Amino acid sequence: MLMVQKFGGTSVANPERIKNVASRVTTYHAQGHQIVVVVSAMSGVTDNLIKMAKELMPLPAEREMDMLLATGEQTTIALTAMALHALEVPAVSLTGAQAGITTDGVHTKAKIKNITPRQVRSLLNEGKVVIVAGFQGQTPEGQITTLGRGGSDLTAIALAAVLKADLCQIYTDVDGVYTADPRIVPEARKMAEISYDEMLELSGLGAKVMQSRSVEFAKKFGVPFEVRSSLNDNPGTIVKEETRSMEGVVIRGVSLDENQAKITLVQVPDRPGVAAQIFKTIADAHINVDMIVQNISLTPDAPCTDLSFTVDKADLLKAAKIIDGLRRTIGAREVIADEKIGKLSIVGVGMRSSPGVAAKMFETLATAGVNIQMISTSEIKISVVVDIAKGKEAMRLVHKAFLENQA
Amino acid sequence: MLMVQKFGGTSVANPERIKNVASRVTTYHAQGHQIVVVVSAMSGVTDNLIKMAKELMPLPAEREMDMLLATGEQTTIALTAMALHALEVPAVSLTGAQAGITTDGVHTKAKIKNITPRQVRSLLNEGKVVIVAGFQGQTPEGQITTLGRGGSDLTAIALAAVLKADLCQIYTDVDGVYTADPRIVPEARKMAEISYDEMLELSGLGAKVMQSRSVEFAKKFGVPFEVRSSLNDNPGTIVKEETRSMEGVVIRGVSLDENQAKITLVQVPDRPGVAAQIFKTIADAHINVDMIVQNISLTPDAPCTDLSFTVDKADLLKAAKIIDGLRRTIGAREVIADEKIGKLSIVGVGMRSSPGVAAKMFETLATAGVNIQMISTSEIKISVVVDIAKGKEAMRLVHKAFLENQA
Repeated sequence: MLMVQKFGGTSVANPERIKNVASRVTTYHAQGHQIVVVVSAMSGVTDNLIKMAKELMPLPAEREMDMLLATGEQTTIALTAMALHALEVPAVSLTGAQAGITTDGVHTKAKIKNITPRQVRSLLNEGKVVIVAGFQGQTPEGQITTLGRGGSDLTAIALAAVLKADLCQIYTDVDGVYTADPRIVPEARKMAEISYDEMLELSGLGAKVMQSRSVEFAKKFGVPFEVRSSLNDNPGTIVKEETRSMEGVVIRGVSLDENQAKITLVQVPDRPGVAAQIFKTIADAHINVDMIVQNISLTPDAPCTDLSFTVDKADLLKAAKIIDGLRRTIGAREVIADEKIGKLSIVGVGMRSSPGVAAKMFETLATAGVNIQMISTSEIKISVVVDIAKGKEAMRLVHKAFLENQA
Repeated sequence: MLMVQKFGGTSVANPERIKNVASRVTTYHAQGHQIVVVVSAMSGVTDNLIKMAKELMPLPAEREMDMLLATGEQTTIALTAMALHALEVPAVSLTGAQAGITTDGVHTKAKIKNITPRQVRSLLNEGKVVIVAGFQGQTPEGQITTLGRGGSDLTAIALAAVLKADLCQIYTDVDGVYTADPRIVPEARKMAEISYDEMLELSGLGAKVMQSRSVEFAKKFGVPFEVRSSLNDNPGTIVKEETRSMEGVVIRGVSLDENQAKITLVQVPDRPGVAAQIFKTIADAHINVDMIVQNISLTPDAPCTDLSFTVDKADLLKAAKIIDGLRRTIGAREVIADEKIGKLSIVGVGMRSSPGVAAKMFETLATAGVNIQMISTSEIKISVVVDIAKGKEAMRLVHKAFLENQA
């Protein structure tokens, strides 16, 4: 079997942990598998490099940031090879460039253009464990690039795709993907499997096991992968294309994002171009907007509406200031900023063919006296904004209603 | 003017010092020069990497050591580029591989095979300062290699050779090459210039400004270079081919090596093969021997001689044990180990054409009651072994006799 195993920064944080990684790899190697190991920089190393860079230049050139940060993974691959040698496992380390990973030239967030795994394959055929530096590649002109956030996961999944690996394991510090955050909902269960789309919705909703980007890539190239813990031997969660057996399922998981804040424009004149003006100004300030809710106008002769949207809590002050500046031009009566909100979502591919899910969710919340401030839905997700003080309780209730009576 | 400037690990030890390097480079750049900067790893970084490697594997694979250690210089080039950007100087960093430095495949002590400075030249022509990682290169097959001790100096001198640079400056933590160690001989003078051969003898004799290897390379390719301090703006010492003006000079410098120890075999039978047997055994144990002195036999009917040689103090115990094991086989009467010695040398290219230098040195020592234990000479050097307690005094006397009455 050909396996790709990816270990993140905390799994390789120091020589002792690198030894643990090596002994895990050795177990699989002893079973006769061909193994490609992808590693991140040791945790703390990247931050330290960034700190030194900032001491020299507030906004360092991105090409030089890539030159700098690529050393982090290069250090880890060499140390991991040594740890495997100590266990008498033949192993060779390769930088992203040596592994044949070619990217575009957009430094610090390069996109993989193609992978030529000639050297990886030939080393695997020699019986060697091949250790590849995650997060990095090289342009066709030989410039060192990095792939941005979640880049090492992407390296692993892309290598699994091009090598047609039988298995891709993403080792992390959690046991897999849960039906809800177990710290909030003790009854949460680890899912044996989940579809790419569901994982994407959960990734975007605060259940930050992986960056969306890698999941999207895996979906695009049909690479199934397993998210599992580097701290134990428990099976993790398999992420793959939606399967027949999943169809009966209605709700897959519940997530709560407490990191959003809400801005409401009260009594905005309901005329064309107002929303465009608002969100263009917000976008120009590089503030990401998540939910947007606007109701139809209820007073036909003086058409007015309330417009609400959510942003990251960190951007609230900035966004509120911008909107306040626009208030007169737009003619809104008032701007209300509220950071005491939680965004509660239920996710499941079965939802689109199962009517009544939304009704059941709203009813569950109503019965418990939880007021719903905003609602937004997609094909596989329903999100509501509630008072942050009731967020966790609401999450437990919804989890109970949808996930605990399943047997 | 095209300049190559090399800065060692202490000169780039932290962001603050890298700023100093950048501001020095900026001064030259503002004068309109084309500049290639070669940097080492920040001091301490390499040691830390080696420490982690040893935690994983007592004797790490050399290929992986190169993969690991090459990150040190890569970090420095990126930070140095940022520091120059902060001063609004256009600068680009290049790894050894990117700078076109091709080596053989002898990991951890690779030799430069050739340099293709196409990219360096084209960046220089764009007006950029080019910052090259010292100490490293790449095999034709794309393996990362390092050049071993003194490798960054070598990178600088090799680049100066292939680029036909007008000037090569080696920045270090001393002001240049002195007639003697100023900490021992306060009257020591900095030399304005010195020949490659003299520098080679001094390098090998404890005046460790540079590794012999880089000086040999500079001599071979006729690259003059300047050794100077990164802490001030004083002119340093120019190292170059022996020139006409040097011919009158007799003695160039005095050095004292207190890191040697002496082993004497007393009354060794004077028959063929004995010396060979001794030094083969020592060499097999990877112990370097420096001086060897054996007198002619003085008792023709039972030919016997005393044989002395010196080794690094660190190897004394091991060497003495080996020789003691051989004593019976050889038939020597006794083995004496002595680590209380100093090796005092005078160096100068004029010496070969100037009789009486040795006599004057011995007389100077005799007058001061310093006993000479061993003598060894070459074309441009005379070395004597004396009691370590008298070493510094002897050095000052010899310096005074040869170097202070010159006007």
